[in-house]
Amino acid sequence: MRIGIVGLGLMGGSIASALKSRHEIVAYDLNAEAVAFASAHGLIQQGCADPRELFSQAELIYLCLYPQEIVRFIQKHQKDLISGTVLVDISGVKRQLINQVSQILRPDVDIVFTHPVAGREKKGIAFAKAEIFQGANYIIVPTAHNQDSHLELVRKLALEMGFKTVSNLNADEHDAIIAYTSQLTHVLSLALVDSDDALLDTKRFIGDSYRDLTRIAMINEVLWSELFLANQTNLLDRIKKFQVSLTKYVGLLETNDAAGLQRLMLDTRRNRANLEAGEK
Amino acid sequence: MRIGIVGLGLMGGSIASALKSRHEIVAYDLNAEAVAFASAHGLIQQGCADPRELFSQAELIYLCLYPQEIVRFIQKHQKDLISGTVLVDISGVKRQLINQVSQILRPDVDIVFTHPVAGREKKGIAFAKAEIFQGANYIIVPTAHNQDSHLELVRKLALEMGFKTVSNLNADEHDAIIAYTSQLTHVLSLALVDSDDALLDTKRFIGDSYRDLTRIAMINEVLWSELFLANQTNLLDRIKKFQVSLTKYVGLLETNDAAGLQRLMLDTRRNRANLEAGEK
Repeated sequence: MRIGIVGLGLMGGSIASALKSRHEIVAYDLNAEAVAFASAHGLIQQGCADPRELFSQAELIYLCLYPQEIVRFIQKHQKDLISGTVLVDISGVKRQLINQVSQILRPDVDIVFTHPVAGREKKGIAFAKAEIFQGANYIIVPTAHNQDSHLELVRKLALEMGFKTVSNLNADEHDAIIAYTSQLTHVLSLALVDSDDALLDTKRFIGDSYRDLTRIAMINEVLWSELFLANQTNLLDRIKKFQVSLTKYVGLLETNDAAGLQRLMLDTRRNRANLEAGEK
Repeated sequence: MRIGIVGLGLMGGSIASALKSRHEIVAYDLNAEAVAFASAHGLIQQGCADPRELFSQAELIYLCLYPQEIVRFIQKHQKDLISGTVLVDISGVKRQLINQVSQILRPDVDIVFTHPVAGREKKGIAFAKAEIFQGANYIIVPTAHNQDSHLELVRKLALEMGFKTVSNLNADEHDAIIAYTSQLTHVLSLALVDSDDALLDTKRFIGDSYRDLTRIAMINEVLWSELFLANQTNLLDRIKKFQVSLTKYVGLLETNDAAGLQRLMLDTRRNRANLEAGEK
């Protein structure tokens, strides 16, 4: 089918790359250089200088924009959409975005809210690659407005991109679990780097554990501050739960409780091992 | 030269593997199966059923044991050591171990305290591989008792194993920085897994960030509880500093401070990028 992509950044470019062998990809980006790059590298069949050019051709359009840009894009351009078009959101927060979009979107256009749980600590189409989706998780957050056939189509496309599991969640479940698996991990990584007192040349004394835990501190601050604030309550709740767990370790250390430390570590190792089972 | 290895676990096996092409390796382990495995896989030239057999041949001996086992091993076996032998410790904490060993070690035997900052979330010689040292950091903690030629030899062997940087630190510096780069990272990873409320099937909603941050929660609880408690004061201090950094994020989230979040993230990204410069 002919698939549209609005926003040729890391994610838009990677989706194009993952779908281009089976579909015709048309794309639009405010940045003409990104469109030129995508054309030159064969990621898209056609670049559009105007969204209307894309709207007239694509039956389904991935909106690869930051959450607030999605709202602005819909406000500005939906008058030009063809009736029956399917939009697909791919951003990392849902409740706030769904509320905002539901209030403004034309009723003859459907939008499927999804979250490909994949990415890179890089920004821009030059770093796009289809491989980031291989074996990864994809979440669909159906709304009452969605047509079943559209949900099914989006699910099928996710599997074509290489995602291994596609799960349906409601918006509140999505935001609660993602606050833990994605946003909390980023906060911890950031705070870990921030707490470096830099009395020595840290670089000379790190191992893979520090490298692994701080890689995601190479963050896109505009996107992530928006994601954090759009999921503020859940994220604050997960930070609190984390602090409770951290305090367990403080207590065991202060009381020199070797047996207690071992018990807690063993429990945790088992839980983590269960996650790994069947993992890529 | 002829190099001895006491303790054929993940680290002992990896050191054997990294040095075997240039040196003759003789090894001892309480567990006869580990010795048989190392022989069968060509990691060592000779397995010894008794430490004395090893002592009589090796000029330099890596003690690949948990810290408290090092103390017990020295207490039990040092009467059989050849005068002039160089022992090498490779454990992850220094101040407490150096104090304990200094009180008991024969004066005609030298011990060089070192820390190869490398490992795997696996246990046992079956997972040993020389590659874990490639490009990694190595720390030497010289004592007043050490002969310069022994320090130089241990440094040279670290480079032969594939380590990229070899740094000298005093024991207090070592324990302070390692509490941050290694032990704190493990505590955070453990607490992150522990704080899972498991209301949903977490596995279906994780991305690479969660995988990366929790891999080291697959912990060897006996070794790490010992390491944590042997470096208790430093680790508690680093947890406190981390909590201060985490609280910055709580404050910015509670006050909806997008600009403040972006500033802090940007600072952190730059600091992390500096670490990456020249990294493997």
